[in-house]
Amino acid sequence: MATALTWPLTDNGHEVRLVGTHLDREIIDSIKESGVHPNLDLKVPEGVRAYQLEEAEEAFDGAEIVMSGVNSFGVRWASEQFASLLKPGVMVIAVTKGMEADDDGNLRILPDVLAEQVPDDVREQVSWSAIVGPAIAGEVAVRHDTCVVFTGQDEDVLEKLAATFRTDYYHVWTSTDFIGCEVCAATKNCYAFGGGFMDGLLDKEGKSDAKYRRYNYGAALFAQATRELGQWMELLGGDPVTSRGLPGVGDMFVTTMGGRNVKAGRFAGAGVPFSEVQNERMKGVTLEGVAAIRVIGGALPKLTERGVIEAEDFPLMRHLYAVVAEDEPVNMPWDTFFGGDVTSLRGSA
Amino acid sequence: MATALTWPLTDNGHEVRLVGTHLDREIIDSIKESGVHPNLDLKVPEGVRAYQLEEAEEAFDGAEIVMSGVNSFGVRWASEQFASLLKPGVMVIAVTKGMEADDDGNLRILPDVLAEQVPDDVREQVSWSAIVGPAIAGEVAVRHDTCVVFTGQDEDVLEKLAATFRTDYYHVWTSTDFIGCEVCAATKNCYAFGGGFMDGLLDKEGKSDAKYRRYNYGAALFAQATRELGQWMELLGGDPVTSRGLPGVGDMFVTTMGGRNVKAGRFAGAGVPFSEVQNERMKGVTLEGVAAIRVIGGALPKLTERGVIEAEDFPLMRHLYAVVAEDEPVNMPWDTFFGGDVTSLRGSA
Repeated sequence: MATALTWPLTDNGHEVRLVGTHLDREIIDSIKESGVHPNLDLKVPEGVRAYQLEEAEEAFDGAEIVMSGVNSFGVRWASEQFASLLKPGVMVIAVTKGMEADDDGNLRILPDVLAEQVPDDVREQVSWSAIVGPAIAGEVAVRHDTCVVFTGQDEDVLEKLAATFRTDYYHVWTSTDFIGCEVCAATKNCYAFGGGFMDGLLDKEGKSDAKYRRYNYGAALFAQATRELGQWMELLGGDPVTSRGLPGVGDMFVTTMGGRNVKAGRFAGAGVPFSEVQNERMKGVTLEGVAAIRVIGGALPKLTERGVIEAEDFPLMRHLYAVVAEDEPVNMPWDTFFGGDVTSLRGSA
Repeated sequence: MATALTWPLTDNGHEVRLVGTHLDREIIDSIKESGVHPNLDLKVPEGVRAYQLEEAEEAFDGAEIVMSGVNSFGVRWASEQFASLLKPGVMVIAVTKGMEADDDGNLRILPDVLAEQVPDDVREQVSWSAIVGPAIAGEVAVRHDTCVVFTGQDEDVLEKLAATFRTDYYHVWTSTDFIGCEVCAATKNCYAFGGGFMDGLLDKEGKSDAKYRRYNYGAALFAQATRELGQWMELLGGDPVTSRGLPGVGDMFVTTMGGRNVKAGRFAGAGVPFSEVQNERMKGVTLEGVAAIRVIGGALPKLTERGVIEAEDFPLMRHLYAVVAEDEPVNMPWDTFFGGDVTSLRGSA
């Protein structure tokens, strides 16, 4: 995603320096040699220079904006790097999607983790923001219309960042609901995993090419997920409006349309025990949505035990957790959805 | 859909009589002869008897529940039939999706239109309910999990109806937010038309098979549509929760996945003037979503003129109307979305 954003940035005349992690060595080599980003399968724009990790100091020198494109597994590592690389006055903007939980089930957003290891005096002189909303990287890179939200605590910073990135195809809104936006980004990834179940169930029944699909199933999950997104806002202090906009339903829609996460969900829907999906069928594949289910779904029993939530709250997330972490088969607890107790529900389905 | 619902009904041991309109003559003939519904391409269950229109009186005799499966174009006609066929004490349940508008732009739900021509004394002794939520008919008929909402004013009636239809694959909730449910059913059909634009734009650019699609575009539309669904609730007196559940986002999701409406939207996205789509490319094809855009989108200027809504309200619905009714090219007014004025929006994207 960080590479994809070099398109709007260079279209706006900015100079961009792309620094790889130790895992991106071949990507950086490729860009240095031919300009081609091998995963995106596209030549990066003129005005983009690539740096290996050991050249990071040179790349950071004089930078006004620092974007973090590491995935959720790399946030602690990135924080360690930032500890020595960040200079006061810099605007940091992150695209990582996920959350962390402590032993009591308290959840925190990743920009806080990213800032953690930066020395106090620098951290306070740096602004911390993030990008959320429905954006498949390759679509941004080929300049297809994309609508996103820049989020953080400082409105002026968000406006400066938005003005830097905004083009006629990269449409940027801003929101100071930092918590709400980040919680949506993490939780929608979990629910999108369930988006793979509908095709998986058809696979299981030998109906992979059948005329009648399972869109009704997927749509019911989407509706329950939308409900739970709103409940996450209530629980963690986000604005419910955020969950109904680009950061919530918008991003959940795009993530449900495909990708590794949905592929893993499809295996689970087809009846493959999830330990087998992770250790064999998709061995070595980064599954951020699944990791988020482990963290967020794993916090639910603790929050329930402490009386913070009720046992009947978040039934879909609880089932996703059971599938991913406890090897349970996919078996939707329909009766618990939409407020549960189907015989007493009124106006809230 | 009415035929599809004979599966859960007969699975529950009920006798079902299927009456065709004058347009369904061949379908009824086919079911009478071979049991096969030619459009669904399935043999209807044992326990279902088919009747031609002239046999309607016999079919209605002794019926406890009367389901209306006509589409929005047939509601006035169905009301005329009901005027002589309905008996006091019957429970009517409709599956039609749409709305009507008067010359001032006042919108009304279709169950009201369906009841209109029934004599007062009978109308008052009949209950009027409807089914909403994400349900592709064929999926119900092959017993794929489907979650719907039965809606009406009388809770006891809704519970009776739900108990009659509910099976282990046809999951029924009830809601007394009759207005909200019906308005969702009509408006989500309009927004799903826009779901065709993303592929249409690729067609136009010669990228129909390109690696990078336009899901970001579709997701942004879905998020703005979700926002507008909520605003329809506010405007017409529905419960905002309804728009975030099965009747709103759930049904919009499934309708966006395909069908005639999305196909028509794809032509429009590809740059075909809509008059040509309607009169040539898809001549003779029933397009309920498009008809709903004409009615609902057409009411917006009148409501604006009267000061009921602001000119910047419902920008997506207004654009869909311009495409469908005024042959305008698809050209998303992004800057008007999510509260408009992208430089001043806070926490509501």
